[in-house]
Amino acid sequence: MTASASRDLTVTEVRLTPVLVADPPLLNTQGVHQPYTPRLIVEVVTADGITGLGETYGDTKYLELARPLADRLVGHRVDDLNRLFAEADEVAVDAARVSGQVDVGGLRGVQTADKLRLSVLSALEVACLDALGQSLGLPVHALLGGKVRDAVEYSAYLFYKWAEHPEGVTAEKDDWGAAVDPAGVVEQARRFTERYGFTSFKLKGGVFPPEEEIAAVRALAAAFPGHPLRLDPNGAWSVETSLKVAQELGDVLEYLEDPALGASAMAEVAAGTHVPLATNMCVTTFAEIKEAFTRDAVQVVLSDHHYWGGLRNTQHLAAICRTFGVGVSMHSNTHLGVSLAAMTHVASTVPNLHHACDSHYPWQSEDVLTERPAFVDGTVRVSDAPGLGVELDRDRLAFLHRRWLDDDGALRDRDDAAAMRVADPDWAQPTVPRW
Amino acid sequence: MTASASRDLTVTEVRLTPVLVADPPLLNTQGVHQPYTPRLIVEVVTADGITGLGETYGDTKYLELARPLADRLVGHRVDDLNRLFAEADEVAVDAARVSGQVDVGGLRGVQTADKLRLSVLSALEVACLDALGQSLGLPVHALLGGKVRDAVEYSAYLFYKWAEHPEGVTAEKDDWGAAVDPAGVVEQARRFTERYGFTSFKLKGGVFPPEEEIAAVRALAAAFPGHPLRLDPNGAWSVETSLKVAQELGDVLEYLEDPALGASAMAEVAAGTHVPLATNMCVTTFAEIKEAFTRDAVQVVLSDHHYWGGLRNTQHLAAICRTFGVGVSMHSNTHLGVSLAAMTHVASTVPNLHHACDSHYPWQSEDVLTERPAFVDGTVRVSDAPGLGVELDRDRLAFLHRRWLDDDGALRDRDDAAAMRVADPDWAQPTVPRW
Repeated sequence: MTASASRDLTVTEVRLTPVLVADPPLLNTQGVHQPYTPRLIVEVVTADGITGLGETYGDTKYLELARPLADRLVGHRVDDLNRLFAEADEVAVDAARVSGQVDVGGLRGVQTADKLRLSVLSALEVACLDALGQSLGLPVHALLGGKVRDAVEYSAYLFYKWAEHPEGVTAEKDDWGAAVDPAGVVEQARRFTERYGFTSFKLKGGVFPPEEEIAAVRALAAAFPGHPLRLDPNGAWSVETSLKVAQELGDVLEYLEDPALGASAMAEVAAGTHVPLATNMCVTTFAEIKEAFTRDAVQVVLSDHHYWGGLRNTQHLAAICRTFGVGVSMHSNTHLGVSLAAMTHVASTVPNLHHACDSHYPWQSEDVLTERPAFVDGTVRVSDAPGLGVELDRDRLAFLHRRWLDDDGALRDRDDAAAMRVADPDWAQPTVPRW
Repeated sequence: MTASASRDLTVTEVRLTPVLVADPPLLNTQGVHQPYTPRLIVEVVTADGITGLGETYGDTKYLELARPLADRLVGHRVDDLNRLFAEADEVAVDAARVSGQVDVGGLRGVQTADKLRLSVLSALEVACLDALGQSLGLPVHALLGGKVRDAVEYSAYLFYKWAEHPEGVTAEKDDWGAAVDPAGVVEQARRFTERYGFTSFKLKGGVFPPEEEIAAVRALAAAFPGHPLRLDPNGAWSVETSLKVAQELGDVLEYLEDPALGASAMAEVAAGTHVPLATNMCVTTFAEIKEAFTRDAVQVVLSDHHYWGGLRNTQHLAAICRTFGVGVSMHSNTHLGVSLAAMTHVASTVPNLHHACDSHYPWQSEDVLTERPAFVDGTVRVSDAPGLGVELDRDRLAFLHRRWLDDDGALRDRDDAAAMRVADPDWAQPTVPRW
C-alpha cells in the first residue's frame, strides 16, 4: 500500500506515431501487399513517467479516431479501462467510413463504427496494460489472470509471393524469393521450419485457381506428413467451390479458413463438410457472433485483439467461444513486435486455445523495438518482465515515422489492389466469389 | 518495479472457516429458511502476510471440495488465477453429489460437478483478488478494468415471512414481524424503503396460490406507483399459470423471474408474453447458456458470482449476455458482507447492468466484518480502498464458527423443507409445478 500511495497511474499524455514499415510482395485475393504498410504506435505516459506501448492499424480511418479516443484517456488512470470503452460510443465516426461499405481489401466484412473504434481502443488498452504492469511490477498476463502456458505456439504463415515488388517501386529487399507454385510453397515452408521451428502451416490462398492451391496443400502434406495444415482464400470461393476443396483436402486440413463470404455462405459450407471452418472475416466483432454461432456457420474464431478491442475483450471472446463449443485461435495482419508481445500475453491466458496462432511477424524485417521477439521451436516465450516486456527503439520509431511523413499519401492507406495495378494496370478489385 | 521486487504474492496458507449465521423465517416454495444457515469464510494468506477474504456456501458438499481446491492454490500466486480454474477439473467430485439429482432446495437445476467446483472457486478467486488489491494498493474493481459507476443499485428483496421461527427452535429474534398477505408485504416494502432507500422491489413468490401473490404485487404497485417490481416463484408454476400471471401483471412487472422450471418451459412462457423473463435457475452455469439463449428462453440472466465462479467469470457472463442481447442483473442467496462487497465491485464494472441487483443482505443481522456495508438511497457505494475494502472481525468469526462446531449436523446443510416440517410434520418437498 505504501508502494501505491506514491504511485500515480494518471495518464498525462498519449503519443500517436504513424509509421510505414517494409512489407514483402505477398499475394492475396485482392492483389499484393504494398512495399510499405501503415501502422500506428501508441505511447501512453503516466504521471510517474512510465510509458506503455500499443500498436494498431495506421490507415487514415484509424488515425482520425485515434486522437479523439486518446484525448478521452488523458487525465484518467491506466487501470480505468471499462469506462473508456463504455464512453467510446460517444466519439463520432465519419459517416462516409461506415456507409455500409466493405473495408479496403474487403477482408473484414462491412465496415462499422464499432469495428473502427475497437481497433483503435485495442492499442490504447494494450498501452495502458503495459504501463500498469510496469508500474505494478507485473507482466501483462498477470493483469489478465495469469498465464496457463509458458510459451505460445504460432503457425508458419505461408504466402504466395513474388521475388520482388514491381519494377520501379521503391522497396526494401527480402531474401525469401518467389513462391508461386507448390514447389515454391514447400520451399518457403521449409525455411520457416528451419528458421523458426514452426510445425503447423497456413497458406494464404485465393490467389490462384483452387486446383493449384489444392496441389500446393497436397505438396505440403507430402513434405510435412501429419502436420496441421490450413488454407485461407479470404472468402474468394463460392459455396460449391468451397465444398469441393473441403472434400479434396478433408484428410489433411486442420481447418479451412473463410472459404466463402458471410454467415449464410459459411453456414452452407459448414453444413456440407466435416472440415471445421475458421474465420477472421465472418465474425470480427461481438455484433456478428449471434447469427454465426446460432447457425453453426463457424467452428473456430480467429481472434485478433486489434479487431476485438484489446486483450480483455479477447478473453471475453474466448469465453463466448468456449460457451458455444466454438474453437478459438488467433489471426494476424501485418504487425510489429508490440502487437506480437500483446498477442502472446493474452494467448497465454486463454485455456481453450487449442490451435497455433497466426502471425505475419516473420515477414516484417523492420520493427520499433530494441530487441525483436524470437520464435523458438515454433513458439514465443511468454515474458514475465513487467508490462509487455518490450522496449521502444526511439531511433527506429523516428526513422519509420519519417518515412510516413515523407510519403505523398500513396501508401498511407493500405490498398493491395492498387499495388497490383502497378504490375498489372488492368487489375480490378476482384468480385467475389472469384471461383 | 522496486515496489514489486520486495512483494511476494505467493499463497502460503488458505484458512477455511465454516460458520452458521442467523437467518429469519423467510418463506419460499420449498419451505422456510432454517434459523441458521451455513457459510464458508475463506482467508488467503500471502508470503507478505496479507490476508484476502472470500465467502461462499457452507454446506458439506462445498466444504468437501474447498480443501482440495484450496490446496492447489497454496504455493501459487494470488494473480495466478486462470491456471487454478483450468486445473480445477482435476479435483474429484463425489459421484453421489452429481448423479443427476436436483440440488437441495431445487433452486439451481440439476447438480453438476462444474457448479459445485465453481461455487467454491468463486470464494478463492475473490480472496485472491482482495489480497492482490491490498498488496498493490488497488481496489478490486481496478483489477477488473475499473468501475463504470460509483454506486451499485440494489432492490428490496421482499419475502413472505413468519414473525418467528417455529416454537421450540433456537433462533435469533428479528424485528421485521410477519408478512403473509398483501398488506404485510407492502408494510415490509415500506420498511425497506425507509431504512435503505430501495426504489425497486422483488417479491419471493411460489409460497401462496398465484392469485394471492398477484394481489400482493398489485398492492405493491398501488403503494409504489411506477417503481420496478419483480415476482420470483422459483419455478413453482406451470407454463399455463406463468402465462396467466404474466398477463395479469404485465403492466407493472419489470420482469418475471423463473416462473417455470427448465429451458423448455421458460421458452414456452417467453414465447407467449411480452414480460421479460429473468433467471437464476434455468441458466446458472456456462454449459446452460447455449440452449437457453438460442431458444430465447430468458431475457435477463441474474448472475451470481458464487454460481459462475467469481468476479472475472461474471464479467465474461455479462459479455456473453451483451453479445446475445440478453439483459444482466444479479442474484443473491443468503450471504454476508464479504460477498456483498464482492458483488458491488464486479457490478460496478459491468457496463450493461441495467437492473438493480438482488441482495438478501438486509435480512442478515450477523456478519464477520468489523463494519457492515451500508445501503444508502438503495445503493452501496463502490469502495476505492485497496482490495475489497472490508475488514474481518476475528471475534465474530470465532463466535459464528463456534456455533457451527456446536451444531449436531442438523443445520450444516441448508434444507428449507426440513425447517418447514418442524412447523408442519406433513410437509413434503413440493413437486413442481405446484400451481
